[in-house]
Amino acid sequence: MRALFLSESGPEFRIDCHEPDETSGESIVKVDLAGVCETDLQLIRGYMNFSGILGHEFVGTAETGPLAGQRVCGELNCSCGDCDLCGRGMANHCPHRTVIGILGRNGAFAERLSVPNANLHRIPDEVEDERAVFVEPLAAAFRILEQLRLDGNERVVVLGSGRLGNLCAQVLNSIGCHVTAVDKHSEKLQLLSELDRGISVAMLDDLPHAGHSENKADIVVDCTGSPTGLPTALRLVRPRGTIVLKTTVAAETQMPHASIVIDEISIIGSRCGPFAPAIEALAQGSIDVRSLISARYQLDDGVEAIEAAGQNALKVLIDPKPG
Amino acid sequence: MRALFLSESGPEFRIDCHEPDETSGESIVKVDLAGVCETDLQLIRGYMNFSGILGHEFVGTAETGPLAGQRVCGELNCSCGDCDLCGRGMANHCPHRTVIGILGRNGAFAERLSVPNANLHRIPDEVEDERAVFVEPLAAAFRILEQLRLDGNERVVVLGSGRLGNLCAQVLNSIGCHVTAVDKHSEKLQLLSELDRGISVAMLDDLPHAGHSENKADIVVDCTGSPTGLPTALRLVRPRGTIVLKTTVAAETQMPHASIVIDEISIIGSRCGPFAPAIEALAQGSIDVRSLISARYQLDDGVEAIEAAGQNALKVLIDPKPG
Ligand SMILES: [Zn+2]
Ligand SMILES: [Zn+2]
Ligand SMILES: [Zn+2]
Ligand SMILES: [Zn+2]
Repeated sequence: MRALFLSESGPEFRIDCHEPDETSGESIVKVDLAGVCETDLQLIRGYMNFSGILGHEFVGTAETGPLAGQRVCGELNCSCGDCDLCGRGMANHCPHRTVIGILGRNGAFAERLSVPNANLHRIPDEVEDERAVFVEPLAAAFRILEQLRLDGNERVVVLGSGRLGNLCAQVLNSIGCHVTAVDKHSEKLQLLSELDRGISVAMLDDLPHAGHSENKADIVVDCTGSPTGLPTALRLVRPRGTIVLKTTVAAETQMPHASIVIDEISIIGSRCGPFAPAIEALAQGSIDVRSLISARYQLDDGVEAIEAAGQNALKVLIDPKPG
Repeated sequence: MRALFLSESGPEFRIDCHEPDETSGESIVKVDLAGVCETDLQLIRGYMNFSGILGHEFVGTAETGPLAGQRVCGELNCSCGDCDLCGRGMANHCPHRTVIGILGRNGAFAERLSVPNANLHRIPDEVEDERAVFVEPLAAAFRILEQLRLDGNERVVVLGSGRLGNLCAQVLNSIGCHVTAVDKHSEKLQLLSELDRGISVAMLDDLPHAGHSENKADIVVDCTGSPTGLPTALRLVRPRGTIVLKTTVAAETQMPHASIVIDEISIIGSRCGPFAPAIEALAQGSIDVRSLISARYQLDDGVEAIEAAGQNALKVLIDPKPG
């Protein structure tokens, strides 16, 4: 089948990739649409040493298994179900896991992929493919609501207003938080302003370099995708405030140690989230994702799609259906 | 009066320091005994740019104010009481604060110091000076119980078994946690073993460099006083576990960013704690501090005392009473 394959020499479009094998407990899913994410770009730079078919954000149609014939999306962590962490409700952290398109398992930039049945979620009819493909990154934004006990009155700064930052800003705004989105690029901020939902925006360079703690944020979400995000977040958060780290960079970060202790800051890493509230929000239309779509490519032009995603674009979609 | 004064040229013993002024809302305290802490050593290395009389761990006798004639110890953060953070119960983080012996206010390595009345706590008769001088660092250990919701079944690693690490290990052990103390120095670990309270000990070099998450700690407390503490803690903590940072070093830390996000680790800075449970624990004898005293110096030999504290010693006490 056709697929976008990552090997040591980089990503390439291939026409001769193996169809996924039928595996007990898994379903074959025909991919209808997939999305390129920051993690894909990192993988290409060598993060995780991944080799295989890329892609972990997708909507498709189950061809086999309990949801055969239905439109589905799928959680990406495929856990063992038997270990200590799986038993304690932390299957996303199973040390034996494979991860779709990221670790030991082929991904969705292909005509078909195999997904554990337990990972599949049905997509309601009213959520079209162009929006359903956002379930996975939107779930990652909803993860913040699982991790923090928010009362909806918090002052939140979201650093980085790209793909994931935009969704985090919208999710935190949707529960009433006072959200300021910060970016170096005014076009990205404009998208959030134009939603007209009360999300404030600010250019990174316009932020005060030091300020009274009265003006500092209760919560800063780092979606910059850059190792500079954390030091900036530390500058903007109030004493005893919380920094949510969404950025996964292979690089190490220089961290001003003392201020974390003196100001008793909490830094919390945040990764994959719950699909159910993400699907629900898309069905209700409470989160806008269409404005994030910046381009759509055929799978055969997948390398080009990934290059576009790296050029400061928003969400680039890949359509694996034969053109 | 006699005092140990820190200036740009380093710490020196002086006989001509000004007696503290009587200030409304504050009490003059005659110092009976003081303790040298890691922070004092950092201040001497330039941390906080402090100049003035050092010392923030003390027990003394109030000479003026509402507790005149009584034995007291004192919290070190002197806040404004008026600002947003003070109003929200975060007086320890008041941006206008002075800090005894650390920031804008003279400390306790002196015959007398002035302390805001609100900061004073009475010391029960059964807690002798040699133990009362540990209230402040013990309170810092109790701070962890305020910050984390522990059920007492957690597997905890305390990195660094010096002054503060020893107290953190004991406090976490006292609520039932399964504590392993880790250090490079077996003598320090032996102190904790000899308490015979079920605290496990391990040499740093004997720890596995990577291991199954089944064996990893729910909580790691970094009391190393070194920028290497955090990377080690990240190696030892389980997915979704918590690292409590007690180390304040002026240096920056190299932090492996991705593992914090992938494993969804929480890192929480932890500083000053509540005096009441610390005083209570000393009164009840539930925490041992006597075994931590490694030397006692006259104030006149204060420079020597600080040097001793820097030579890998445990708690060095300074007695300001005329010899
Ligand atoms: Zn992704
Ligand atoms: Zn497992
Ligand atoms: Zn101290
Ligand atoms: Zn204040």
